Parts: sequence; C-alpha cells; structure tokens
Amino acid sequence: MNNEAQFNSLVEKSTVFINGEYFPAQEAKISVFDRGFLYGDSIYEVCYSEDGQLQFYKEHLNRLHRSAELLHMTMWLSDDQITEQVKQTLKKSELKDAYLRIVLTRGESVISLDPGTSFRNNLITIVKPKVVIPVEFYTDGVELYLTEILRNDPRTVDPNAKSGNYLNNVLAINDAKKQGAYDAIMVNAAGFVTEGTTFNVWMIKDGIITTPPVESGLLAGITRKKILEIGDSQKIPMVVKDFTPEDLYEADEAFITSSTRKIIPVRKIAHKVYSKPWKHTSKLMEIFNTYLMENKDRIHYL
Amino acid sequence: MNNEAQFNSLVEKSTVFINGEYFPAQEAKISVFDRGFLYGDSIYEVCYSEDGQLQFYKEHLNRLHRSAELLHMTMWLSDDQITEQVKQTLKKSELKDAYLRIVLTRGESVISLDPGTSFRNNLITIVKPKVVIPVEFYTDGVELYLTEILRNDPRTVDPNAKSGNYLNNVLAINDAKKQGAYDAIMVNAAGFVTEGTTFNVWMIKDGIITTPPVESGLLAGITRKKILEIGDSQKIPMVVKDFTPEDLYEADEAFITSSTRKIIPVRKIAHKVYSKPWKHTSKLMEIFNTYLMENKDRIHYL
Repeated sequence: MNNEAQFNSLVEKSTVFINGEYFPAQEAKISVFDRGFLYGDSIYEVCYSEDGQLQFYKEHLNRLHRSAELLHMTMWLSDDQITEQVKQTLKKSELKDAYLRIVLTRGESVISLDPGTSFRNNLITIVKPKVVIPVEFYTDGVELYLTEILRNDPRTVDPNAKSGNYLNNVLAINDAKKQGAYDAIMVNAAGFVTEGTTFNVWMIKDGIITTPPVESGLLAGITRKKILEIGDSQKIPMVVKDFTPEDLYEADEAFITSSTRKIIPVRKIAHKVYSKPWKHTSKLMEIFNTYLMENKDRIHYL
Repeated sequence: MNNEAQFNSLVEKSTVFINGEYFPAQEAKISVFDRGFLYGDSIYEVCYSEDGQLQFYKEHLNRLHRSAELLHMTMWLSDDQITEQVKQTLKKSELKDAYLRIVLTRGESVISLDPGTSFRNNLITIVKPKVVIPVEFYTDGVELYLTEILRNDPRTVDPNAKSGNYLNNVLAINDAKKQGAYDAIMVNAAGFVTEGTTFNVWMIKDGIITTPPVESGLLAGITRKKILEIGDSQKIPMVVKDFTPEDLYEADEAFITSSTRKIIPVRKIAHKVYSKPWKHTSKLMEIFNTYLMENKDRIHYL
C-alpha cells in the first residue's frame, strides 16, 4: 500500500472529537488560524487502551498539565471536560485496543506570536486502532542510529514539554530511516545521550540499569517513571545518570521504553551489537508485564 | 476590544485559499491529520504588498525553497502553482496594502514522525490587511528585552529554516511582554546575540554597522540581505560578526529589521538607553526607503 492509501485506511478507522463535538475523520478539521497549526503552539499526550480499558490516564493528564506549565499555556478547559471528551471519543470508536491522541492548542488568535493574544483552547481527541508492534521487536530487538542532529536544549524549548514542535525529532527519525535503522537516538550539545525520537533510552552494564536524567533534555516518559519505581520497590540496581555514546557501546545490554511499546530490547547501535541473551532486559520485561497486569489506573469506557 | 473580538475582526477581513480553492476565513480549515498541525511540520513566508503590488516575492519564494531543503521537505507543488494561488488570494482580497502568509505543510500522513510517510503538500495562503506600524516606533524607537530563553541551536532545528516550530520564539516574546517590552532578543548557548523573535538585530559603534552571522542561529532576513547589499554598493561600513549583549550595551545605536516593519530604531535594551539623535540609523532608514521606491521585484495583482 502506498502512503496515500495507508493514510486513507487510517482515516477510515479513526474517530475524532473537536471541542466536545464528533466529526467523521475525513471532515475533522481545525482553523488555519489555530496557533497549533501556525506555530506548533500545542501540547499533546498519547495513551493506549487494552480490552476496553484506558491505561495510566491520570498520569498522562498530569503530564499534560506539566507541559502546559512549561510553555505557560493557560488551560481554559477543566480536567472533567477533557476526560469527558476522551471517554466519548473512545466509546464512539468502539475499539477495544486503541491509540488515543489528545491535542490541546492555545486556540486561534490574531496572527501574532504573543500568546497573550489567545483566548481559549482547542481540544482535539483522535482515536485509532492500536498499532500492533511486530513480535520480533521484542524477541530480536531493534537497530538504532545515533544521529548527528542534537536534541533541543532545555533552555530553548524544554523537551520535557510534550508539544506540537516536533521538527527536531522528525529530522532525527528521517536521518535514521535513511540509514535503514528503526529509529534514532540523540545526544545533547555536551555529548550525552538524551532520548530517542519518541522513546526513552536505557543501558545495562554489570547489572546496573542506567537512564539519562530529565535535565539532559528529554521527556520524562511514563513507562520510564514506572520502571524506576519498580527498580526502587524491587531493589533492582537502577541509576539516573548521564552517559555518552561510548558508554552505550561498552554496555552489556540496552533497551528503549515508551507507553505504546513498553520495553523493546536494542539489538544494535552503530557498530555495536548487543549479544543475546539479554538477561537483565528479559527479566525486566517479565517484571514489567506482571506490573501492568496489576495496574489499577484504568478507565473502563466500553 | 478583547482577544476574541480582535480575532473575529481579523477573520472578517481575511481571505484564505487552501490547495487552490477559496474558503471564507471562518471555514478555512485543515485536517487534524496534517503534519503541520501535529508536529509543526511546515514552512512559511510572510510577504507584504503596497498599492496592489507584492514586494520581493521572488526572494520569499527562494527562501521557502531553502527552508524546504533544510528540513528535507519534498515540494510536490511547482513554483507556478504556488504563485498562482498567491495571486488569486491577493486578488480575491481586493486589498491594496496586504499581509500575505504562505504556509506549506508536509501534508497529511499516518500518525508517524517519519516524513517518509507523507505523500503531498498542503498549501495555505492567508491574506489580511497590512498591520499599520505606529509612527512612534520609527520616531521614538522600541524597547527590547534580553530574554534568558536561548535561541535554538542550528544543530537541532536550524533557525534559518522558517518553519512551523515557533515555540522558542513564542516563549521569548511572552517573556518580553511580561516585562513590558515591545519584543525579545535572544542569545545562543555561546552567549552571542542571534536575533529577535521575528526580526534581525543590528548595532552601530563608531559608525560601523554590525549584525550577527547566520551561523549564530538566525533567519537570514530579506531586509537584512538588502541592507547588507546597500552597504556594499554604497560603501557604508557594515560587518557580519558575532557580538555579545555587552557589546550591544556599549554600542551607540541599535535597530531591528523585518520585511513588514523595515527598519525600526531601538530606544532601550535592559538598562541601556540609546540617546537620540540616531544619526546612522536615520540615514540608513532614508537610504532604505529610497531603495524600496526603486525596487523592481514587484508583482501587480489588482
């Protein structure tokens, strides 16, 4: 299927609500004066559901608030209004296993960068079928590419705000795809590893699991947080610390995490091949799956 | 008038074309699956017209191409298609003195950062009445604020690409407005002055006019380019060189430039007040106005 056919197929399976109102996905449109469109002046979250239950929604909603704070974005909508629209969209989709994208923009305004000209939010919720991650990703791992495109400096626009400014990541994944890799990881100007384009990065050396600190320039992933909590409660050696690509090449194992993909082992980065068995990664994958089964932070919508 | 009323008034006076088709501004909308909306994955230009003549259009079109190159964005539309839509929008607006915004996005795609999933552009042209710049700006100058928000590093997303990722500048102007200033100027991580949120910055010391190089992290303004050309042909001492905020505070004069505002003197930055008369700035404003009168790069559309 070509790109256009794939897009049309996606639209057919998608459900969209805008400001409380349902729109067939083909007709789901936003004003060209919306600041999200003109400046990427928006924040977003991606959640997923399994078996008609939305996972970790409260955490995602909290993070949406943090993104708003980092960008000094007024949230005119209440949490109840947002949650109501989220539930409506999921219900209308009739999907049991869904991908949910919540986009909140700084609304329309006269064409001016000054956010002081805005007067409301636009809230867009998109639900589509959850993408099935190929099982080989979990069994054989993925190959990453270390791009020369640096991650945004937190002193410019903090990567810890999940915003509508994603060109940095678009350029990075474009670079990785050209090299035939699954995706890219990025370093900061100081030369430390930060994150991937849509996932956090971890390495394991001598049984110690390490991931970079938020200050290095990354989004504090919800799966990242959960794993650090598990490490803490189950006394698994974990440390949040800067590391370089060289440290990564000398590690025994590496893996990536994201809400929709959970834990995926890394097979290869540049010349470095991580040899199986990935003992610690496999163990953590098991522990995390058990943790997910016991997770109580779920919203039933069907 | 409050923000909403101002916005509604703008919409009433605006004319929008999307992909060759006219839309009343209230109904001018773009798919929520458009990459411009989801990721700020778009490029744009702002041009202006005077007396029914579009100014420096060729230069703006060239810059649109450069932005596309910097972001590896395929331009599926020909220059003729873009120009045709530009002319149609201006004509339909019936405005003699207009502001024109050309936005070109990487189109819709399945929800994926990978630009390899895209298959077309969306072209949006917005025309509205040219904003009248208060005459005091030219006679009394404006006050700028030196924000602590750093300008994007060219190794992340090059500020020389005029893109839909403008949160860096949104944060900066927000900061300046809070301080009561007209707008913000930004330094890079090395501590050198780069540009304002939507304009280039210049200083004059001992008769030498200096502006920072593109490599410092800035958009190569078309007015900036014209002024450098004038300096060259008329033997006015000009130099493109990095300078610090301290250099700026020690300068005799300072001014800013942009396509829509031309040359505006700076009255004050932080504690530094530039005392009148701004001899060199005034002279340059005169020379530039003469240059504009003689400009042949115009498109008649009425």
